[in-house]
Amino acid sequence: MIFDVLTLFPEMIESYCGFSIIKRASQAEIITVNTVNPRDFTLDKHKKVDDTPYGGGAGMVLMAQPYVDAYESVPRLANSMTIMLSPQGETLNDNIVDELSKFDQLILLCGHYEGFDERIREIIKPREISLGDFVLTGGELPALCLIDAVSRKLDGTLGKIESADDDSFANGLLEYPHYTRPREYRGLKVPDVLLNGNHKDINEFRLEKSLERTKAKRPDLYKRWMENR
Amino acid sequence: MIFDVLTLFPEMIESYCGFSIIKRASQAEIITVNTVNPRDFTLDKHKKVDDTPYGGGAGMVLMAQPYVDAYESVPRLANSMTIMLSPQGETLNDNIVDELSKFDQLILLCGHYEGFDERIREIIKPREISLGDFVLTGGELPALCLIDAVSRKLDGTLGKIESADDDSFANGLLEYPHYTRPREYRGLKVPDVLLNGNHKDINEFRLEKSLERTKAKRPDLYKRWMENR
Repeated sequence: MIFDVLTLFPEMIESYCGFSIIKRASQAEIITVNTVNPRDFTLDKHKKVDDTPYGGGAGMVLMAQPYVDAYESVPRLANSMTIMLSPQGETLNDNIVDELSKFDQLILLCGHYEGFDERIREIIKPREISLGDFVLTGGELPALCLIDAVSRKLDGTLGKIESADDDSFANGLLEYPHYTRPREYRGLKVPDVLLNGNHKDINEFRLEKSLERTKAKRPDLYKRWMENR
Repeated sequence: MIFDVLTLFPEMIESYCGFSIIKRASQAEIITVNTVNPRDFTLDKHKKVDDTPYGGGAGMVLMAQPYVDAYESVPRLANSMTIMLSPQGETLNDNIVDELSKFDQLILLCGHYEGFDERIREIIKPREISLGDFVLTGGELPALCLIDAVSRKLDGTLGKIESADDDSFANGLLEYPHYTRPREYRGLKVPDVLLNGNHKDINEFRLEKSLERTKAKRPDLYKRWMENR
């Protein structure tokens, strides 16, 4: 999977990709993360990439020309999808992550400051994806979330011991509680059932805890699970 | 506002905080971002911070002792809130961001890999916040989103020209389209109304576009706005 990230802050993307599972997935050539900076495509002698909005108002607006030219410079694979990270998009969820993981290339358009000149949307016609109903300074963190979440779904990213099958949402429920050594910490003990080695009992205990927790914290997911089982 | 971030990957937090608006807010002493690494608190000679789960299964579980000790090492201000970033939490939104921006200190607990020993939750009793219904490798990106979104709400972070008042969600609607120079790009023109200098017309145009867009993309927000106006 190739991720091509259009951003005025390539270092934000590159520095995060030097750590943990994303780093390993890059080294294993499961993913490649490229950055493209619209600033390198400006025709303005001052390397300007944004300007004040027509009609007045707060903030700076990303100019169409450097952004569209940067976008058009990216080599396209056949099985490719272009995504604008924007609070106006569909809210990212595990189903969308699954769907995106089937592409060979994701081109991620990050804004910064106030927003995009509307003609960038009109020309590129990206799918728009949002992290949720809150506002960030730029699309870089959402792009990194998307890269992280999608990479976890690709064969080989997670080691055998890290399977994503038990993750929250993978079966439509929140995850059961985990315990590791020691058996007792500050008077709090690991539940006996996890120590007795009976896998049927352990699975029942975990499902029960998942259901309990989902019902309490996410009645919407609980309802859907009960309806679909 | 002080952000104290508990993480096994302090560089992920620190590198992002060296850019853009977060960097400026730090330099202006509006925010301070500290990191605390539970690995520095392990009593194990191999500096182990995670171990296999009791009862078997995939992944490694963060051990309670280094994490709780790291947490207890953080000096507490009176007006402080502790937040665990977890897919099991309430979904972050603009109202929660507003609420969090009223604290003087946010202690952010990031997991990594499979999850937290349940006793960490039982002892610390954090508020749990999620970015949404998808799974990431760690709490670091959600913590950075939270830091970015909250910092934007603090007096002085955004310059006068960057007011957050027009952002999506600030008035319950998606933001209207922006345009900047040139007036025409690849045959696409800036709407005339934005060029005529009549602020009443401009405001009407923008509200109409906000409503149109919100109705098309986010009927849930549109419905709430119509009910509350």
